[in-house]
Amino acid sequence: MRKISVIGIGAGDPEQVTIQAVRALNEVDVFFLLDKGEAAEELVLLRREILDRYVGESTYRIVVAADPPRDRTASDYVGAVADWHQRRADVYERLIRDEVPEDGTGAVLAWGDPTLYDNTIAMLNTVLSRGDVEFDFEVIPGVSSVATLTARHRTSLNQIGRPVQITTGRRLARGFPDGVDDVVVMLDAHNAFAGLEESDVDIYWGAYLGTPDEILISGQVSEVAEEIRARRAQARARKGWIMDTYLLRRRTTE
Amino acid sequence: MRKISVIGIGAGDPEQVTIQAVRALNEVDVFFLLDKGEAAEELVLLRREILDRYVGESTYRIVVAADPPRDRTASDYVGAVADWHQRRADVYERLIRDEVPEDGTGAVLAWGDPTLYDNTIAMLNTVLSRGDVEFDFEVIPGVSSVATLTARHRTSLNQIGRPVQITTGRRLARGFPDGVDDVVVMLDAHNAFAGLEESDVDIYWGAYLGTPDEILISGQVSEVAEEIRARRAQARARKGWIMDTYLLRRRTTE
Ligand SMILES: C[S@@+](CC[C@H](N)C(=O)[O-])C[C@H]1O[C@@H](n2cnc3c(N)ncnc32)[C@H](O)[C@@H]1O
Ligand SMILES: C[S@@+](CC[C@H](N)C(=O)[O-])C[C@H]1O[C@@H](n2cnc3c(N)ncnc32)[C@H](O)[C@@H]1O
Repeated sequence: MRKISVIGIGAGDPEQVTIQAVRALNEVDVFFLLDKGEAAEELVLLRREILDRYVGESTYRIVVAADPPRDRTASDYVGAVADWHQRRADVYERLIRDEVPEDGTGAVLAWGDPTLYDNTIAMLNTVLSRGDVEFDFEVIPGVSSVATLTARHRTSLNQIGRPVQITTGRRLARGFPDGVDDVVVMLDAHNAFAGLEESDVDIYWGAYLGTPDEILISGQVSEVAEEIRARRAQARARKGWIMDTYLLRRRTTE
Repeated sequence: MRKISVIGIGAGDPEQVTIQAVRALNEVDVFFLLDKGEAAEELVLLRREILDRYVGESTYRIVVAADPPRDRTASDYVGAVADWHQRRADVYERLIRDEVPEDGTGAVLAWGDPTLYDNTIAMLNTVLSRGDVEFDFEVIPGVSSVATLTARHRTSLNQIGRPVQITTGRRLARGFPDGVDDVVVMLDAHNAFAGLEESDVDIYWGAYLGTPDEILISGQVSEVAEEIRARRAQARARKGWIMDTYLLRRRTTE
């Protein structure tokens, strides 16, 4: 039986891999790297660096496949994502069938933690449910960008006994979520924090967390929103891409 | 200047520590272990095992301090926690002042990820704000029990583009939270999942995650609640303590 490992590699610092991940890396015959175009070149380099650092001998192969393009202009966001999901599952199915030897192990290096806003697990489940190729898979948890964000700001993710929500920039644009005072926002391409109507919200913002380019800014949203927006635009222009995430903490107490 | 490291050690598997954590462990002069009584003896053992495994020479000291008791019967939950928080901060202040050499490094090994339902960071900030002892501190993120839960169940924490809330059993007892279909529940001593009124909720439950005693159960809540309750009571009776967490996923789509 073929085996596939989905290995969390942390969110930017190669030292964020776990001992468990290092062990798993050393059992892999073929690594799949999905190439997402120039912007993500650095992210592919980090994956290669992790392999160079932690895998003893070069007994593995790397197979680079093109990530199917996604229609980001579609008005039907969920539909466009579902379509892209199927095409991406096609790629994985082909990779598993054609590149992983019978009784061999293939692996995907998942950014941060593999279960947080990452489609790999869903895709493997899709491929399995199609029933055209048989394999077993395991998931090695990782340090997420969320854990890195709060660690670097030396603050807790949640307040004592209180809930926290993790959501997307797209959702935050509809307003501060109900039922929580602490919200982590990921995948925000449009500075959704700047549109918040609440005046009593603090933000803990981080970009390129765990990397030498790391930027941290915190303060009351109304006071630091402009600074974040400017630093973000500047960094994005300079590097060609940005990854940022933030925690919003409403001061209201129950 | 004294330095304190709050080091995430993963949620049960000693191989869940990161390379970054191993590096930090090796720079520590004094480790603080807070003794929470018999129930947590195994958790102290795991911490000792991590030190034995990953710290080269035994150039460090371990200082065991008694964790101040907490009034779990108080009707004023928030007040009781705040009071306990102050007494715990007293303990930390004393440990830092009396046990960490000037220019030395003290450390706390934090279970899972240090920023998730863990008071250590808040306590260090409290001690700092009192201004009686000076130190710098850093936080090393870790793999949380949440990441381990979803990894072991090979499911995502969130659905595509959708939010997820992390909350406590105490809060879930008030009903399924608003605005989300995916909820992670921690610190649940009373099987709050069994009281859910919704019939279309799946549960992914895990106890002693990452340890040899790990138990995983998943399915529709209405169908597996009894099984989880029974296995939980059994395991708790056998070991004397239990740590469990679960993801609830409502089938409703928007
Ligand atoms: C597709 S999600 C993957 C998240 C990943 N699985 C994790 O655990 O962090 C990508 C989003 O994660 C966040 N992110 C990932 N790495 C980051 C980093 N090093 N610094 C800041 N944000 C990061 C950003 O919000 C980005 O839009
Ligand atoms: C005080 S909180 C600390 C959480 C920790 N900081 C983390 O990142 O997992 C303790 C709660 O975490 C969850 N937990 C921690 N370790 C666990 C494990 N190995 N298996 C299942 N649940 C665990 C349980 O819900 C428990 O009540």
